[in-house]
Amino acid sequence: MSRTEIKELGEFGLIHHLTKNIELQNASSIVGVGDDAAVIDHFGKQTVVTTDMLIEGVHFDLAYTPLKHLGYKSVVVNLSDIYAMNAAPTQITLSIGVSSRFSVEALDEFYEGVYAACEEYGVDLIGGDTCSSQKGFIISVTALGEAIADKVVLRSTAQKGDLICVSGDLGAAYIGLLFLEREKKIYLESPQVQPDLENESYVIGRLLKPRARKDIQEFLDDSAIVPTSMMDISDGLSSELLHICSKSGVGCLIYEEKLPIAEASKNAAYKFQIDPTACALSGGEDYELLFTIRQEDYEKITLNEQISVIGYVTEAEKGATLLTKGGNSYTITAQGWNAFKP
Amino acid sequence: MSRTEIKELGEFGLIHHLTKNIELQNASSIVGVGDDAAVIDHFGKQTVVTTDMLIEGVHFDLAYTPLKHLGYKSVVVNLSDIYAMNAAPTQITLSIGVSSRFSVEALDEFYEGVYAACEEYGVDLIGGDTCSSQKGFIISVTALGEAIADKVVLRSTAQKGDLICVSGDLGAAYIGLLFLEREKKIYLESPQVQPDLENESYVIGRLLKPRARKDIQEFLDDSAIVPTSMMDISDGLSSELLHICSKSGVGCLIYEEKLPIAEASKNAAYKFQIDPTACALSGGEDYELLFTIRQEDYEKITLNEQISVIGYVTEAEKGATLLTKGGNSYTITAQGWNAFKP
Repeated sequence: MSRTEIKELGEFGLIHHLTKNIELQNASSIVGVGDDAAVIDHFGKQTVVTTDMLIEGVHFDLAYTPLKHLGYKSVVVNLSDIYAMNAAPTQITLSIGVSSRFSVEALDEFYEGVYAACEEYGVDLIGGDTCSSQKGFIISVTALGEAIADKVVLRSTAQKGDLICVSGDLGAAYIGLLFLEREKKIYLESPQVQPDLENESYVIGRLLKPRARKDIQEFLDDSAIVPTSMMDISDGLSSELLHICSKSGVGCLIYEEKLPIAEASKNAAYKFQIDPTACALSGGEDYELLFTIRQEDYEKITLNEQISVIGYVTEAEKGATLLTKGGNSYTITAQGWNAFKP
Repeated sequence: MSRTEIKELGEFGLIHHLTKNIELQNASSIVGVGDDAAVIDHFGKQTVVTTDMLIEGVHFDLAYTPLKHLGYKSVVVNLSDIYAMNAAPTQITLSIGVSSRFSVEALDEFYEGVYAACEEYGVDLIGGDTCSSQKGFIISVTALGEAIADKVVLRSTAQKGDLICVSGDLGAAYIGLLFLEREKKIYLESPQVQPDLENESYVIGRLLKPRARKDIQEFLDDSAIVPTSMMDISDGLSSELLHICSKSGVGCLIYEEKLPIAEASKNAAYKFQIDPTACALSGGEDYELLFTIRQEDYEKITLNEQISVIGYVTEAEKGATLLTKGGNSYTITAQGWNAFKP
């Protein structure tokens, strides 16, 4: 019998492999596997469903992640997927598996963060499962949201000529991770050394307490802009751009100088002698929205300082290209986070 | 700082502890934490949501659980919760965490079982997450279903005088587990001994390939019977009876002689010198439906041989009582499966 290693397929290859034969059976299943969330029809109003699993040692390190932040983030990363469908989150379910290492007080802290996120975003925790694990902390969240049927935005509908937009700024969460990993290493080697993270609160905050862009989804709605495609940036801008290009059958041209990068991120990146642009392109966990709009919506978009136009959609043959500040063209490749990388 | 061990609270105590302060925020959140599934309103038709996490070494042992059966069962146990709401399942999401110990072929087998269950019950797999785990196999399924608003059946609405019914037969899955655990022990001690399970295919099948009682939910619907309360039996009949009693503020009287136990289960139990009644009361994972009906529905219920009337609902003061074949009364206590028992 042959044996194929999961890492040979990679995360998306594996998902494709496992789900490629699905045929939806119910008329109410409008969108299934393959986008940020699934869509279920309910007489005009549609329910949007998404789910994420977070595993200790794989997705988070409790050496530097406060449990309250972890609870908050576990919810927010799912809500981000709902907003990325141009929907409003309404409910979540939460399942956790915990080993005897964790006390009730520890779980209280975790749930404090969960409930803080629920309150901030107006969602209800409506179910879940609580069980013991043999090792570590395991979290699974499913989020549901509501959308108007003809306003749901997929990844597969970008059109040549559309403008490519991102919300907020990029790369900070990855640089925050580098700082925390460095401090952990120092601590393990010399426990008496106090961590010095005070000047890096911006990048660290972006990693530990990300926000879902409810404000952007509401702005688009209020401005009567329906993006032609949208997804959230969890694995890195490059990776997500390639998703939209391949799903929509288009190419893209991105201008390096247009990439929104916070001053704090640039300064922090230089301390690690890494290129802020590389962080913006390949760093994951920013949870900003990446979306495309029709050119005629450009004027409306400029009213929101939290949105940057970074390029435009081209025909598929042109590929995905980055035009650098120096005038060079590079082909964009996915170097974002891969769940099955060794 | 004080430290409370999770096992001090137990599973349900912990869930209560973690969720007791929830206030639902959305008008569409009809039922939240505390029943088999959550209910979300959608203009008359309601969406029912439930979720379960299964962890290797805690919920299943791959030494004697074929991956295909595991995939099938992971779906079915969630669908069982949907039927227990008197709803019809329509969609699931599935997240898995797997270590490098598992190959793609192994996951294929698992998904074969998942898809077999989806096809058999007519549900769509509409999303999920696939990630690596540090250790073992982790499964999280969320199931969605549809119900007519005024036909959703909760655990909290049993009334004094109602008849208590169960579907199918009880205790078999637990006895099947005993056999498999015994064979595993023999195998570990003497790998050359071939397992002899042929005569126990009924009880082992009940453990490894449970069914969700779609047929019972459809029979109730076709017969215009709306149970006054209902839940599925995953932790054992005693435990579930006590849930219905405490949630509904009632007591119950159960007749030992009415408990449905298959001949194969009785014979298998005697081989272990254990009481089949104890297995029926405390053995988990049968996934039968436990429900209460109005007395006037009794005639209709007798038309279905798969349904047994095992007792009736009393006032709360009478407690939960088992009347034995010998004429003795025992107070029913929960000895079902507890996720946090050491």
